[in-house]
Amino acid sequence: MSRKIAILGGTGPAGTGLALRWTRAGESIIIGSRDAKRAQETAAAMASKIGSAARVEGMDNVAACAATDILVFTVPFEGHATLLKQLKPHFRPGSILIDATVPLETSVGGRATRTLAIWAGSAPQQAAELVPDGVSVVAAFQNVSAEVLNGEGSAECDVIVCSDDKRAKTIVSELAEKIPGVRAIDGGKLENARVLEELTALLIGINIRYKAHGAGIRVTGLPGLTNVRS
Amino acid sequence: MSRKIAILGGTGPAGTGLALRWTRAGESIIIGSRDAKRAQETAAAMASKIGSAARVEGMDNVAACAATDILVFTVPFEGHATLLKQLKPHFRPGSILIDATVPLETSVGGRATRTLAIWAGSAPQQAAELVPDGVSVVAAFQNVSAEVLNGEGSAECDVIVCSDDKRAKTIVSELAEKIPGVRAIDGGKLENARVLEELTALLIGINIRYKAHGAGIRVTGLPGLTNVRS
Repeated sequence: MSRKIAILGGTGPAGTGLALRWTRAGESIIIGSRDAKRAQETAAAMASKIGSAARVEGMDNVAACAATDILVFTVPFEGHATLLKQLKPHFRPGSILIDATVPLETSVGGRATRTLAIWAGSAPQQAAELVPDGVSVVAAFQNVSAEVLNGEGSAECDVIVCSDDKRAKTIVSELAEKIPGVRAIDGGKLENARVLEELTALLIGINIRYKAHGAGIRVTGLPGLTNVRS
Repeated sequence: MSRKIAILGGTGPAGTGLALRWTRAGESIIIGSRDAKRAQETAAAMASKIGSAARVEGMDNVAACAATDILVFTVPFEGHATLLKQLKPHFRPGSILIDATVPLETSVGGRATRTLAIWAGSAPQQAAELVPDGVSVVAAFQNVSAEVLNGEGSAECDVIVCSDDKRAKTIVSELAEKIPGVRAIDGGKLENARVLEELTALLIGINIRYKAHGAGIRVTGLPGLTNVRS
């Protein structure tokens, strides 16, 4: 498996934050966007920020999808199904799609502190219905603040990882823990992604009430777990 | 306002855990149960465990409801609406009902790692429909492990408190922070209780996968918040 990671919808705050953290960790990143030029500009800005060792490039979402087998979705929910349908012929067999999309009510003119009820259960479950057979969907990164990811400090939060494919869950957990201060937690099956989505809306509300931008969560009471890398 | 706290359905693990922590903190507790004798036995066992300073008594749920104006609901969801209807004539005006009930799928023969979709949105919102006018409902304590509450150590978790009544939210937050290691977090309106319920199901799954019993959560990234008492 290639270790290039393509971040589709990667020019938004969540996408650039993940790209920044993983590029710093030495991963090779493709930023995908509807607009190839915008993706290239974002990649160039990131490379100049990180330095000459940075391996980050930009291309349109379709080319990014076709270029590797680890894909991250950080798109506004209103573009989620449309992009998946567009990408369907371009997935590599055996790819892992990491879906961080949250169906906030803002997609239909509502509030960021509420989610939409998705017929499939959650955005990642909707993704699982729309990808070709053999592509594994993993839900992760919903609850990490984009502002924290785009900052310099330790992220100090857990990333709960849900999937029906254990091998994919292991790979994504390892990627999550490349972000300083992040601990990956096995969140069980993909169907549990709905909880991560609702939790995102709750954390957005907590950010508003506490005049913060970086609310995340840690699971406590798991004495058997290894310490967080920092 | 009287400081007696009545815990209805208080002979189960969550109820006894809260009763134990609050009795230790010097609060005066009424344990309520369908069966007054069982409530009295539970109260007597707790008093003998804590010592002569313990202020804890037992009575049936109706008498407990009528005896004070701070009520905690720790009942299995299948008994939630029935008990509320039974109690309706017995609430003191201005009472605060703290609802910790989680509508787990176990109520209808399903799994503890899943919740039921409640028409009202969540158990506390269902409670708000069933209590007399002037009774405030607060959602809290869903995500605190009963095993942790029944133990000796610091609880090391946050209690997210949701209500449409700010005064009630403040009182419940103060009560929550009487439990060593607990920090209360303003979770916004009562409608957000649905997130706490789903989170409980997720934490139960995490307990199973990590062979733990005490999974809870902390909200990270809130630098403005005061430290947790321990």
